[in-house]
Amino acid sequence: MKLEELLAGVDERTLGKELFDCVADLYPICRSITGEGVRETLARLARLVPLSVHEVPSGTTAFDWTVPNEWNIRDAYVKDIHGQRVVDFQRSNLHVVSYSAPICRRMPLSELRPHLHALPDRPDWIPYRTTYYTDGWGFCVSQRQLDALPDGDYDVCIDASLRPGSLTYGEAYVRGASEEEVLISCHVCHPSLANDNLSGVAIAAHLARRLRDVSPRYSYRFLFVPATIGPIVWLARNESIVPVIRYGLVLAGLGDAGRLTYKKSRRGDTSIDRAATRVLRRLGEPKVLEFSPDGYDERQYGSPGFDLAVGRLSRTPYGDYPEYHTSADNLEFVKPAQLAASLAACLEIFSALEGDRRYVNTCPKGEPQLGKRGLYHAMGGSPQSPASERAMLWVLNLSDGRYGLLDIAERSGLGFEDIERAATVLHAHGLLKVAP
Amino acid sequence: MKLEELLAGVDERTLGKELFDCVADLYPICRSITGEGVRETLARLARLVPLSVHEVPSGTTAFDWTVPNEWNIRDAYVKDIHGQRVVDFQRSNLHVVSYSAPICRRMPLSELRPHLHALPDRPDWIPYRTTYYTDGWGFCVSQRQLDALPDGDYDVCIDASLRPGSLTYGEAYVRGASEEEVLISCHVCHPSLANDNLSGVAIAAHLARRLRDVSPRYSYRFLFVPATIGPIVWLARNESIVPVIRYGLVLAGLGDAGRLTYKKSRRGDTSIDRAATRVLRRLGEPKVLEFSPDGYDERQYGSPGFDLAVGRLSRTPYGDYPEYHTSADNLEFVKPAQLAASLAACLEIFSALEGDRRYVNTCPKGEPQLGKRGLYHAMGGSPQSPASERAMLWVLNLSDGRYGLLDIAERSGLGFEDIERAATVLHAHGLLKVAP
Amino acid sequence: MKLEELLAGVDERTLGKELFDCVADLYPICRSITGEGVRETLARLARLVPLSVHEVPSGTTAFDWTVPNEWNIRDAYVKDIHGQRVVDFQRSNLHVVSYSAPICRRMPLSELRPHLHALPDRPDWIPYRTTYYTDGWGFCVSQRQLDALPDGDYDVCIDASLRPGSLTYGEAYVRGASEEEVLISCHVCHPSLANDNLSGVAIAAHLARRLRDVSPRYSYRFLFVPATIGPIVWLARNESIVPVIRYGLVLAGLGDAGRLTYKKSRRGDTSIDRAATRVLRRLGEPKVLEFSPDGYDERQYGSPGFDLAVGRLSRTPYGDYPEYHTSADNLEFVKPAQLAASLAACLEIFSALEGDRRYVNTCPKGEPQLGKRGLYHAMGGSPQSPASERAMLWVLNLSDGRYGLLDIAERSGLGFEDIERAATVLHAHGLLKVAP
Repeated sequence: MKLEELLAGVDERTLGKELFDCVADLYPICRSITGEGVRETLARLARLVPLSVHEVPSGTTAFDWTVPNEWNIRDAYVKDIHGQRVVDFQRSNLHVVSYSAPICRRMPLSELRPHLHALPDRPDWIPYRTTYYTDGWGFCVSQRQLDALPDGDYDVCIDASLRPGSLTYGEAYVRGASEEEVLISCHVCHPSLANDNLSGVAIAAHLARRLRDVSPRYSYRFLFVPATIGPIVWLARNESIVPVIRYGLVLAGLGDAGRLTYKKSRRGDTSIDRAATRVLRRLGEPKVLEFSPDGYDERQYGSPGFDLAVGRLSRTPYGDYPEYHTSADNLEFVKPAQLAASLAACLEIFSALEGDRRYVNTCPKGEPQLGKRGLYHAMGGSPQSPASERAMLWVLNLSDGRYGLLDIAERSGLGFEDIERAATVLHAHGLLKVAP
Repeated sequence: MKLEELLAGVDERTLGKELFDCVADLYPICRSITGEGVRETLARLARLVPLSVHEVPSGTTAFDWTVPNEWNIRDAYVKDIHGQRVVDFQRSNLHVVSYSAPICRRMPLSELRPHLHALPDRPDWIPYRTTYYTDGWGFCVSQRQLDALPDGDYDVCIDASLRPGSLTYGEAYVRGASEEEVLISCHVCHPSLANDNLSGVAIAAHLARRLRDVSPRYSYRFLFVPATIGPIVWLARNESIVPVIRYGLVLAGLGDAGRLTYKKSRRGDTSIDRAATRVLRRLGEPKVLEFSPDGYDERQYGSPGFDLAVGRLSRTPYGDYPEYHTSADNLEFVKPAQLAASLAACLEIFSALEGDRRYVNTCPKGEPQLGKRGLYHAMGGSPQSPASERAMLWVLNLSDGRYGLLDIAERSGLGFEDIERAATVLHAHGLLKVAP
Repeated sequence: MKLEELLAGVDERTLGKELFDCVADLYPICRSITGEGVRETLARLARLVPLSVHEVPSGTTAFDWTVPNEWNIRDAYVKDIHGQRVVDFQRSNLHVVSYSAPICRRMPLSELRPHLHALPDRPDWIPYRTTYYTDGWGFCVSQRQLDALPDGDYDVCIDASLRPGSLTYGEAYVRGASEEEVLISCHVCHPSLANDNLSGVAIAAHLARRLRDVSPRYSYRFLFVPATIGPIVWLARNESIVPVIRYGLVLAGLGDAGRLTYKKSRRGDTSIDRAATRVLRRLGEPKVLEFSPDGYDERQYGSPGFDLAVGRLSRTPYGDYPEYHTSADNLEFVKPAQLAASLAACLEIFSALEGDRRYVNTCPKGEPQLGKRGLYHAMGGSPQSPASERAMLWVLNLSDGRYGLLDIAERSGLGFEDIERAATVLHAHGLLKVAP
């Protein structure tokens, strides 16, 4: 089966439900950049697709970074003087600032107050906060919770451990005809947040699962990594693989109601940039952002020492929706149909990448005689030639080794499928050879 | 006489009549890509300008192509059972599909019907159709003719021959100071169609005739060739000439009422592209198209193995007027004044090409002192210097070997004539030398 | 003290008055391209800032030019038959065409008339005219004066001398850390015209004076030269210095009420072009002109043999205000506040130039861990990171040796100060090194 046929028989509703169920399954788990939550997440994904799980010991260095101690949490709360849990980790894992140091102490509100984080503008939402590389601790609460706390003493408990252990990440590899790779990366370090980034995680896992059913041109590598430290550790351990990474895509925030947004790779004019732009254009008004060194893990793949052709696919950009990094990024916020459409867009981008080649016209002086090969209309004189013939003429004319099929599609204004089909036919007739 | 003075004393009305008479003279001849019609056409053009006529035997290969058998036609008709010619080649040579195989047989309408071509939307017009490289035959009729045919038997006769012979093309060469060439190409393979391309043929012949009266900088080569196979045969037989072809222009469809349209060469930024754009801009709102590998014989000159700087000059592009390739492209459709203006535009483009040179400022450090050479106003202080002086400053400043005069005209916003005049004066004073 | 702190404690009103007083002090002097007026002007500037004054003998050649005889004038008038001075050099030095040959003769109005220059559209203004490199003579008068002259004889006297002497120019040099230079050039050859160019002269002198109080990165060279012949002579005598001139600015017409206008260097995309554009944008709607080879002395610095990165800073361009080169360009026409703001803009441009460097990220694989250096927020999860952090990420990401800080500011959309500050911090932490 070819990559572009992957979704041929698939009902969009079924696909959306599959992806949503995957998100819902992972939603309750308390994840951070290390710890059991990541392990449990990878274990569940491994039921969908074969995953190699890697454990990198605390203290391991990776470029400028060091793998931190492993953080695990069992329970956490703030109790009032009546023993009532006024903040309770069991009700939402967002209530604890991720990587909080353990604490168990009674203190007055005045001492506790600086450790409580809320969103005054969104009084019912709990924010998501982290404190990975410092010794702090804290709780995230809704503004209403905060306002309801009377003065007085509170029992504050974070039953967490922060000890040497390891950083965990997962990797799925789909071998293609070439050892050249497309890298798909998503972050698995957020607790109960649905769009950011269980949407990306579910789509990546299902892409990996489905790509195993086809024989792709490129090999596909899927990384399920904690943000920032994850790709840095992976890059440091796999520098020898970097040269075969031709293209890549960071997947994040793909389930909300917004339209698809592509953020260009640092180089900005690579085939994946062309392919993604073209696919988004086909799907409607394209929203394409220039590269910037903030955002998700495209920051690391696009650092100047690697400068990989890795873009990012999202729906609403992360700074543009208020639910981002709050308890409102919940299961209601992600839509099955949007998940399904995001996955389909990924496949369409991969399909364009797979189809994009540079050819050389073997018959470059004048046009080859297409008619004698049955490739041209027999009856001449009509003012309009069909798109299939114009596509052949474009491919022949621009196949001088400089232009790939995506370029040719862009310059001709024809559909990529027409151009690709023309190239296939011409190649079969010996009129094109693959450019060196 | 200099090229730009060629039309100085010429009345536009006289010129228009000359060109129109040439079109009208050639109009009745039944031409195809080979055969007596082309020979007769070239023989008449040879009365205007010395032509070398070339005969290339059937079976000769040219790159991927082979010269086909020669086609000639004496008569053709469809007779009803009363012996009445209901379709008659003697009334219009468009009635026979060009290169139809000979046939002489009685058949019922049901068998004849698939061989009849009409235009339902234009019930009075006869379409123009060809079947060069297949064994078919057919008739083109108006929709009214078609609708009027009762069921029953018809005598179908195409008294044509399709046998080894030769392909005929003509060539006119005007020697200039340099062996570097400007190539002008037009197709001579259409039967009674006036705009496409007797307009181009007439203009090319008259350009060749007039250029013989001047001493141009470049040599000019005019090709009167059947479409597609013609330039391919010429290129294959003249590969050694290709390196001296600096620029070129395909002329087609230059007599209709529309405004001039220039289609860029494949490279798109050569001097002829600049020159033609500039001339069209001077004539009003310029209509300039990007290169595409469909259309007329610019396809062959712009194939990747040659990539010649050959653009195309037309009026309304061929797909944009309904009369194209129908009997409505007749003598009423072409206008003497439009023909004359097209020829004048060609000369203006050639004149810009001839004037375009790269110079090197011989005095590049600071401005040379123009005043002591009498080239600068004696009285200083006025806020505005005349265009002639600004033109000198621009030419001096940009003549570092990278920019030609057309570039300088573009960047300065000044007229090409001002820039060219400034360069001539500065060159005469030794302040410029021709760039190597 | 750093360059950007120069104006920290300075009251704009005081600065404006200083500059205006300088203009007013120089205004009455009759200057030309040679002679005592220039010497006197330079002598007064030397009280503000150490100047080296150069005398270049008449007859000295400089590229295509020759230093002319020195012109000095003591008196000039036109007297009517009653001995009344109807045109009087003592009332305005604009009344004599600069470089007029001496004359002392009675003549009828009909003979005098061709030597009288006026502005019919501006009947009260006296134009400014010159006749440097010819033997002519003439008077400039208001149209009202001209109209009031009755027929009859007049005593015409220009008590001037035109003899071998020298051309005088001044030079101030402020040594910086690097021998690489920023060249500031202004013309000192106009008589009583305030905006053109005593505004530029005063600003250049005060810039030189103030820059001596700081330790700039670049060395700054200020040229006070007669227009055209001045920079040509300077360039011819200082060709060995040219290679160290990195950037430059011609200052002219900086005191009128219009907004600042920057005219780009011939190359158009150098750091000074970026810096000036950015500063003008910060000050409001920027008015930026492309290079053209007419105008002020940027013509000479931008001649193809030098092609220096020298732009021009003005307010209203010289052709766009009617007072230009007339008696209406007087002390009322220049505004102290505009002079002060122009000087401040120059310093801001210099400051951007000084701050613009190319760095190389010493930690280019992935991001360096800013948190462990205290450079990153401890609490994660907020959607918006502060500009200071985004600036660090941009500088790290683009510091691959190709981009300078001005480029990075442009691409990031962040303020240059943010980018520069980020680079300073990162450099201090060893995360950047200066690009070779």
